[in-house]
Amino acid sequence: MQKKVFQLLVDNTSGVLSRIAGLFSRRGYNIDSITAGVTADPRYTRITIVTDGDDEILEQIEKQLEKLVDVRDIRVLEPENSVYRELCMIKIEADAKARQGIISLAEVFRASIVDVAPDAVIAEITGNQSKINAFIDLLSDFRILEIARTGIAGLQRGTEGVIWLDP
Amino acid sequence: MQKKVFQLLVDNTSGVLSRIAGLFSRRGYNIDSITAGVTADPRYTRITIVTDGDDEILEQIEKQLEKLVDVRDIRVLEPENSVYRELCMIKIEADAKARQGIISLAEVFRASIVDVAPDAVIAEITGNQSKINAFIDLLSDFRILEIARTGIAGLQRGTEGVIWLDP
Repeated sequence: MQKKVFQLLVDNTSGVLSRIAGLFSRRGYNIDSITAGVTADPRYTRITIVTDGDDEILEQIEKQLEKLVDVRDIRVLEPENSVYRELCMIKIEADAKARQGIISLAEVFRASIVDVAPDAVIAEITGNQSKINAFIDLLSDFRILEIARTGIAGLQRGTEGVIWLDP
Repeated sequence: MQKKVFQLLVDNTSGVLSRIAGLFSRRGYNIDSITAGVTADPRYTRITIVTDGDDEILEQIEKQLEKLVDVRDIRVLEPENSVYRELCMIKIEADAKARQGIISLAEVFRASIVDVAPDAVIAEITGNQSKINAFIDLLSDFRILEIARTGIAGLQRGTEGVIWLDP
């Protein structure tokens, strides 16, 4: 069992996300995270999927993803030659006293305070999952009200394997 | 036609993402972006969906989302009382000469350079969509090779409407 990060380049059509998520769910596979966004060429969407599970079944899923007509490219992002990043916003209950402690903690993690209300603050942090999880763990001294995570977006380092889309 | 941001709190089950995406695609609705991540309580996932379209049809979709058993809460995030953020990584072709221009541009936008290869750099930027789009526009003086966007994650400001999950 290990985390695997798939990166797909797909046609920007209305059903593609549902079809891809369906391939995983029909096997009872939970997707840890899925992120999707248009590329420089609006005809295509880049999707990053993080999942964990048995290697054999993940290989089957990879093969079936390849068969989908919307899927232009699929690859596995290896940690040693890729950059993974996630954005996470955390709303924490905070009166004036608690606020200072949260701000200090945020500075250490290079997180930003993006909203301050009389009874709560929202911190934003970006990084890999272990950095974000460490920040959330340390915030558990306070009362966490809501968390919104984007899931991981990833790119391979360097120019190997770049698909040169027509401009 | 206007962008609408839905925020859902759902059970962390394997099929939930596919069912939700399917509700949109069956109506031929393209999801601009969807982000999903576990909350402080691992039983629940928070999903943020950005879409645009006719108000009446979006209301229908909202009602059908409410009927899904996995969906614990659904609300529309209004721009005036919410924080939206997205993370975007952009790989740009860059020799030593172009690199300096990209780094300067990144500084202006408070973007970070997260990878440097002999022939390319990867910049990371967070912010709302218009800031990210402006950065991408300015980078078009260079050759953009790959873009990976997470899609928007959002939280309502303050503590109104917080669902107090059992710890």
